Amino acid sequence: MHKVIYDTDPGVDDAMALLFLHRHPEIDLIGITTVFGNAAIETTTRNALFLKQQWSIAAPVAKGAGVTFDRKRRGAAWPTMVHGDNGLGNIAVPELIDLPLDARPAHRFIIDTVRANPGEVRIVAVGRMTNLALALHEAPDIASLVKDVVIMGGNFYCPGNVSPVAEANIHGDPEAADLVMKAPWKVVVIGLDVTSVTTMSRSELRALADKGDGAVKMLDELSQFYIDFYAHAVKDGMMVHDSCACVYIVAPELFTTTTGAVRVVCGGIADGQTILKPDGRRFPPNADFDNLSSQTVCIGIQSEKVISLIGDTLTQA
Amino acid sequence: MHKVIYDTDPGVDDAMALLFLHRHPEIDLIGITTVFGNAAIETTTRNALFLKQQWSIAAPVAKGAGVTFDRKRRGAAWPTMVHGDNGLGNIAVPELIDLPLDARPAHRFIIDTVRANPGEVRIVAVGRMTNLALALHEAPDIASLVKDVVIMGGNFYCPGNVSPVAEANIHGDPEAADLVMKAPWKVVVIGLDVTSVTTMSRSELRALADKGDGAVKMLDELSQFYIDFYAHAVKDGMMVHDSCACVYIVAPELFTTTTGAVRVVCGGIADGQTILKPDGRRFPPNADFDNLSSQTVCIGIQSEKVISLIGDTLTQA
Repeated sequence: MHKVIYDTDPGVDDAMALLFLHRHPEIDLIGITTVFGNAAIETTTRNALFLKQQWSIAAPVAKGAGVTFDRKRRGAAWPTMVHGDNGLGNIAVPELIDLPLDARPAHRFIIDTVRANPGEVRIVAVGRMTNLALALHEAPDIASLVKDVVIMGGNFYCPGNVSPVAEANIHGDPEAADLVMKAPWKVVVIGLDVTSVTTMSRSELRALADKGDGAVKMLDELSQFYIDFYAHAVKDGMMVHDSCACVYIVAPELFTTTTGAVRVVCGGIADGQTILKPDGRRFPPNADFDNLSSQTVCIGIQSEKVISLIGDTLTQA
Repeated sequence: MHKVIYDTDPGVDDAMALLFLHRHPEIDLIGITTVFGNAAIETTTRNALFLKQQWSIAAPVAKGAGVTFDRKRRGAAWPTMVHGDNGLGNIAVPELIDLPLDARPAHRFIIDTVRANPGEVRIVAVGRMTNLALALHEAPDIASLVKDVVIMGGNFYCPGNVSPVAEANIHGDPEAADLVMKAPWKVVVIGLDVTSVTTMSRSELRALADKGDGAVKMLDELSQFYIDFYAHAVKDGMMVHDSCACVYIVAPELFTTTTGAVRVVCGGIADGQTILKPDGRRFPPNADFDNLSSQTVCIGIQSEKVISLIGDTLTQA
């Protein structure tokens, strides 16, 4: 069993990924930590509680960061055109969910849980990297105690989605992401190179809803707004960004990877861009990139098999 | 006939490209302008005069910039490990060449020549973009008088060669390159995406030397040092970076292109990186990239045909 902490900002594709983690038989979802990004922290936390309640998920929810790691960074408007005003595609969600939050802030929950399960915890982080950076900052020892950190974020050999070179999760908190990439732990980066080519069509999702239970029907419902948004880039379907990171946990063989130091540009016209220095490539000495942790970067994916695994997992309740 | 000004820093692959321009029957080489980069400006200018003399090239040589457009930028050591101490692979080159230089600095030569041939001049720039930036800065009107500017430089969906994200010509003067990319003229960018996969093997070059005249034999001789350097990246051969840009002049059908605004990162860990904002891709409003000239970026190349055309041209004297 893979012990997973899911760091998330639900978020439409976050919701699908949550249900995948909840339902996959080899995954033990031991915590949900929320972060701002697809909506304000109050909204993403409320949404996490809502999904936990609706889907009877046992894992506790800990509320995380609502501002960037560098508090001087200026925030941008929430991407309501992507995830709806309420972060869940504008389906009906109560203002308040009658469920308790974990008493700790998300980064403290991460620290405690990692220390309590040395070498076992896999963190799947699909929002901004703020909680991870706060955890690392407060407790650098966790780097050697985590099994790995699988993130959805970044782009290497393809364009970004919020700027020509930047992806939303990384662009939303570049300083945090740079800290996470440089840390001496194992990071697996699932970026737009693989997620932007991994799409579920509206009819595929509808077929899953027909076959599945109420949870899948809710997923179908809350995804319609997001699919409409993606019409400019996907023919009647949605990129399943966050689910790709979850699939990596149980089926890494569906990904082609490369390794190297990863940095994030902080500031300027490339703000939020991820950079890979591929291992084995020769460059002149460069203090910005030399002697850093070698991370794993996904550059290829068997999209059809990933989509199929997601569908099978969601409908096997 | 294509009227070409060749802006160059010879440089080993620059020498091959010069012979290509000199020998191609559809190219009228009307000027050679030098720039620093592969070696100091005194060296690259001496080398241009040397090759002009050896190969009986009629075009005048005008000496260009020896420092970056932004003079506050700190210079780096010359890449003697690539092009040799003398910029021509350490073959014997006299200290002084008994040939006159054009009286004008390179950027002034470019301005005058473009104005004298409105709509006709194609600039092939295969070194740092400093001369072009100086010309634009002094005479913005040339942007609408040039036919096009074909540059060897940059990289988009592949790693750089002097940093994980930067190519040497652009990295050597990012401010100049950014100015060139943003200007309202037609720029065609031939970068590492296409040049790094276009290699001539040592034996292919030797076969050309056997078949060709003394000029080709000299090319073969001066390229050996460069081929030795490239052993880490190419199996017994050389990337023919600069010749690719020259081939585009006469055979653009051998390239696959895309279009969009191009910017260059100035400063930070991505210093010297080229960024493409592909036309037709949707991004949030961004003053750094919106409303700029749409340039042409090469993303594919028929390498075998390019190498074959180079060989045929070099040996047809």
